[in-house]
Amino acid sequence: MVNETQHTCSASSSSRSDGSSSGSESSKDNSRCSTPVLDADRHERLREKMRRRQDAGDKWFSLEFFPPRTANAAVNLISRFDRMGAGGPLFIDVTWHPAGDPGSDKETSSMIIAYTAVNYCGLETILHMTCCNQTKDDITGHLQKAKQLGLKNIMALRGDPIGEEWEEEVDGFNYAVDLVKHIRNEFDDYFDICVAGYPKGHPEAESYEADLRHLKEKVCAGADFIITQLFFRPETFLKFMKDCQAIGITCPIIPGIFPIQGYHSLRQLVKLSKLEVPQEIKDVIEPIKDNDAAIRNYGVELAVSMCRELLDSGVVHGLHFYTLNQEVATTEVLKRLGIWDEDPRRPLPWAVSAHPKRRVEDVRPIFWASRPKSYIYRTQEWDDFPNGRWGNSSSPAFGELKDYYLFYLKSKTPREELLKMWGEELTGEESVFEVFTCYITGEPNRNGYKVTCMPWNDDPLATETNLLKDQLEKVNRRGILTINSQPNINGKPSTDPIVGWGPSGGYVFQKAYLEFFTSSEIVTALLRVLKKYELRVNYHIVNVKGQNITNAPDLQPNAVTWGIFPGREIIQPTVVDPVSFLSWKDEAFALWIEQWAKLYEEESPSRMIIQYIHDNYYLVNLVDNDFPLENCLWQVVEDTFELLN
Amino acid sequence: MVNETQHTCSASSSSRSDGSSSGSESSKDNSRCSTPVLDADRHERLREKMRRRQDAGDKWFSLEFFPPRTANAAVNLISRFDRMGAGGPLFIDVTWHPAGDPGSDKETSSMIIAYTAVNYCGLETILHMTCCNQTKDDITGHLQKAKQLGLKNIMALRGDPIGEEWEEEVDGFNYAVDLVKHIRNEFDDYFDICVAGYPKGHPEAESYEADLRHLKEKVCAGADFIITQLFFRPETFLKFMKDCQAIGITCPIIPGIFPIQGYHSLRQLVKLSKLEVPQEIKDVIEPIKDNDAAIRNYGVELAVSMCRELLDSGVVHGLHFYTLNQEVATTEVLKRLGIWDEDPRRPLPWAVSAHPKRRVEDVRPIFWASRPKSYIYRTQEWDDFPNGRWGNSSSPAFGELKDYYLFYLKSKTPREELLKMWGEELTGEESVFEVFTCYITGEPNRNGYKVTCMPWNDDPLATETNLLKDQLEKVNRRGILTINSQPNINGKPSTDPIVGWGPSGGYVFQKAYLEFFTSSEIVTALLRVLKKYELRVNYHIVNVKGQNITNAPDLQPNAVTWGIFPGREIIQPTVVDPVSFLSWKDEAFALWIEQWAKLYEEESPSRMIIQYIHDNYYLVNLVDNDFPLENCLWQVVEDTFELLN
Repeated sequence: MVNETQHTCSASSSSRSDGSSSGSESSKDNSRCSTPVLDADRHERLREKMRRRQDAGDKWFSLEFFPPRTANAAVNLISRFDRMGAGGPLFIDVTWHPAGDPGSDKETSSMIIAYTAVNYCGLETILHMTCCNQTKDDITGHLQKAKQLGLKNIMALRGDPIGEEWEEEVDGFNYAVDLVKHIRNEFDDYFDICVAGYPKGHPEAESYEADLRHLKEKVCAGADFIITQLFFRPETFLKFMKDCQAIGITCPIIPGIFPIQGYHSLRQLVKLSKLEVPQEIKDVIEPIKDNDAAIRNYGVELAVSMCRELLDSGVVHGLHFYTLNQEVATTEVLKRLGIWDEDPRRPLPWAVSAHPKRRVEDVRPIFWASRPKSYIYRTQEWDDFPNGRWGNSSSPAFGELKDYYLFYLKSKTPREELLKMWGEELTGEESVFEVFTCYITGEPNRNGYKVTCMPWNDDPLATETNLLKDQLEKVNRRGILTINSQPNINGKPSTDPIVGWGPSGGYVFQKAYLEFFTSSEIVTALLRVLKKYELRVNYHIVNVKGQNITNAPDLQPNAVTWGIFPGREIIQPTVVDPVSFLSWKDEAFALWIEQWAKLYEEESPSRMIIQYIHDNYYLVNLVDNDFPLENCLWQVVEDTFELLN
Repeated sequence: MVNETQHTCSASSSSRSDGSSSGSESSKDNSRCSTPVLDADRHERLREKMRRRQDAGDKWFSLEFFPPRTANAAVNLISRFDRMGAGGPLFIDVTWHPAGDPGSDKETSSMIIAYTAVNYCGLETILHMTCCNQTKDDITGHLQKAKQLGLKNIMALRGDPIGEEWEEEVDGFNYAVDLVKHIRNEFDDYFDICVAGYPKGHPEAESYEADLRHLKEKVCAGADFIITQLFFRPETFLKFMKDCQAIGITCPIIPGIFPIQGYHSLRQLVKLSKLEVPQEIKDVIEPIKDNDAAIRNYGVELAVSMCRELLDSGVVHGLHFYTLNQEVATTEVLKRLGIWDEDPRRPLPWAVSAHPKRRVEDVRPIFWASRPKSYIYRTQEWDDFPNGRWGNSSSPAFGELKDYYLFYLKSKTPREELLKMWGEELTGEESVFEVFTCYITGEPNRNGYKVTCMPWNDDPLATETNLLKDQLEKVNRRGILTINSQPNINGKPSTDPIVGWGPSGGYVFQKAYLEFFTSSEIVTALLRVLKKYELRVNYHIVNVKGQNITNAPDLQPNAVTWGIFPGREIIQPTVVDPVSFLSWKDEAFALWIEQWAKLYEEESPSRMIIQYIHDNYYLVNLVDNDFPLENCLWQVVEDTFELLN
């Protein structure tokens, strides 16, 4: 037994980890809000969320990733963040490898990956940071950058010394506790700080007890919670936790779970962490070491049973997974534990960014509905987000389009596959119509390939759009090339599985919306038809040169999605905004060239067809303001075709 | 014929009266608006409105009033403003009498009456100002005060010299043109300036032609339009107008119409203005000079026929009426001309103030629905009005209640009548219930008097509330003393004659609302009943001491009236705001004492009954959030009574 006075830390640091008495930011959240608050956790910091979930008896999980090596791997990792984010992790964390330039602006650096997870994927994220062999200035620089990028949580680690033998540096950072102190000294309470715990004791510690004392020092220096090194037996963790409590460590301690996913990765990890694999596990693994699937199945089994035991103990509320950037095993464990929570309820119709500056954002233009990362990218320099109403923003400029090809806006799909989907060779505008039609119907194209993405939408059709499938198919076949649409909704419950969003007990509404590219011939007919619908339908029609035809009053945005909730003001998260439509127009037209035309040789007929469309077609959006009536936009298109015949 | 070069004024002043190229305020209106603009004229200045109405071929009218002599007369004049404002005057104007301390803070001063018309009655208002026998500093002081009070329009006059013989002052203000120049010098383009025209020439002018030249000087110095002295024959005005145009006066010239209302008032006016009454009019009037009704009928007849001729001439677009603070004759003329326009359409559910600072205001708490002037009064010190969302205001303080008895918040009804309505002698709480019930039903009380106002509502029941009459009667009889309510509305056209507001083509919505005083016994039962409705009904229950029971989330306002319009964001003009409810509570409780209890002798049983209610009852508000379903608030009250039985 550890034989020490059972003091907790001084009042200042122990009260810090109590959400109810925390810093100025959260106390501001207790006062009158400037925008209606839909869910409390948009304003909470990580340690408060953790506390609240624990108090509510919720079980939760978190996911650890390491930074990728190549830009392509980064694109894949980010779509993994999106998929695994759907299961509802409380946070993810990104490791820090001093050799890999982790604080740089490279698209593969720890810093940028963590920033992307927060900003673009809406994930609460912890950035690891190690301190040995670094100067105070380096460390402060990294922390300042992390703060400036909107990161709020740091995992403070010592890191591995360079060379075999490690020596203390005078006045340098020798232990994680030095980093914790430094963060608290320099950044006060801005960051939530996590530190590492070693259930078997750190391999370099004098003793298990000495290591526990070090851990307590880190907590007393200001750490908010602990994540442990991996371990193989639940009793290892439960004893460790008891010992921590015995010496007065009261902050949350989260067990690190490592689902065994393969023989080699296990061997490598064990070597790095200087752990020993228990004999009973070796006995199972050695005979099947060349059978990856068998090892993974065993690993999942083992992890599930260990996690169950931990959760059943009553002292464990959250589980931290070392994913090794793999999806399958961890997801499987989480699903079998029943804590993979694909909650269909959305706080808003679009995914909220976790960036502290953006998490109060509550309105966006509809145009980027299928390209939310592009919208976040192009508005990242904004200081304020429209405070509940689009109109409040003083027309801030959108980011330059030249940057739009940045890695996280790239298509996930390789060129060869895109060519199969969109046609190795186009024979005319009609073959473009066909591609659009196949994307809508989900049926294979003439070469037998399904069209699962388009330049304007990197994912298959949304469930909601599926409601409009038949009509969309009909109009795309005839050259109304749709890229965005929504049906009208006249007060469905906010819990509706398809169109619902926001807290329960509310009602959601939509105006019907249709956005498409089409030829100038069709536009001419359309404009004649729209005269009949003057009072009902708002339209914006623009070509690549910016020639703009509209009947919208002034420069006011038209709210096209809104929700009415108990005890709140009305939330109107999606608007058709005439000003940002012109920024979107540039992007929408450029995608024809950048994503599609450039698949083909210069001056090839296929490329010229796309170029022709880009140069001559119009981008049209239509809103039917009479949301309680049947959507008239199909009739508008029908009338247009009739006029043309 | 006037024989002068037909120049218009220099470019600077003639362009000023052209709305399209006017000062910074209106050009700002052309850019993106911070709140959805429901009607253009909320942002226009008077000369632009005038121009727009003229361009649209609309005929309009305006009304002149003089300041009252007593505070009681002021209260009456203000309710006259409300009634005559309902007919849709383009503006009203308030005359200036140097002897009556016109620039003071007295409730009867020209300055304060004009301010009240703008701020409390939502009327575009011109303040007259005379300049002779005043110093530059006096004048500047008056103008600064006018600007600070939100007045935007000045009628610049010379005024009558003191004593019989008038002499020019060196360096002083000798003519109206001096005042016009002074206003433009000191206040640039802030004010719209009106000047007087004399169809027969000013009585003191050397000649008719000389007077026309003076008029042109006033226009060239910066006047935006002209209102004429009264005249008796249409040809007088038409000739004058032609002569003005001949010398290059191009600004609007508005004929001053004086409906003869009585023999003595005619004689007095004629004497003051040194006009001659044409013989054909004298011939009619002299024989009936003691029959007021006959003279008024004749006056109306004469005015209607003259106005018709003016309007039919095609050169007259607006008519200015010298009302002499009388309502009947002018209203009659206007109705017969068909330009009295009681437009039932409202831009918002409540009357918008014409104060420049307030005219963008687009949300208010529901509590002051029947006491809008009190709300305006108590928020007059606010610098910003909630910019589209109540929550944006950083909880500005409400004005002190001690001032609430200011003259324009007084009841229009004299004490004796109030006693007849509310009871000369109360016998218990039940007799109070009866008063409330009679107010709702419109039936006479036990002494045969109808109850047409209550301390919380100086007017009879609103049409909308009438929809709830049966239920209201039932609950008031049993001690649920309702002071405010609205039915739920699930998407009625914005043109609905009872609940509609805003531009056409929209849909309006409401959550059901009920606000009442009731005993603590009923509150106890109500709270038990409300448990069943926890997720559906939001409530605030408070007593005079401020003990507050609520299930509302945080301090967020609940939008209870909103509208969806083509091409616009959602407008949510009425909220139940928990913070301002506590300010309203003070006022609502105080009205028991100030308006009701104080009708009775101190220590009288009647007074003690009201005092008891004030001290012990609770003020309750209930919102049914499920607006698409049948209003459940009546069931809540029903259940409460059942529980009590």
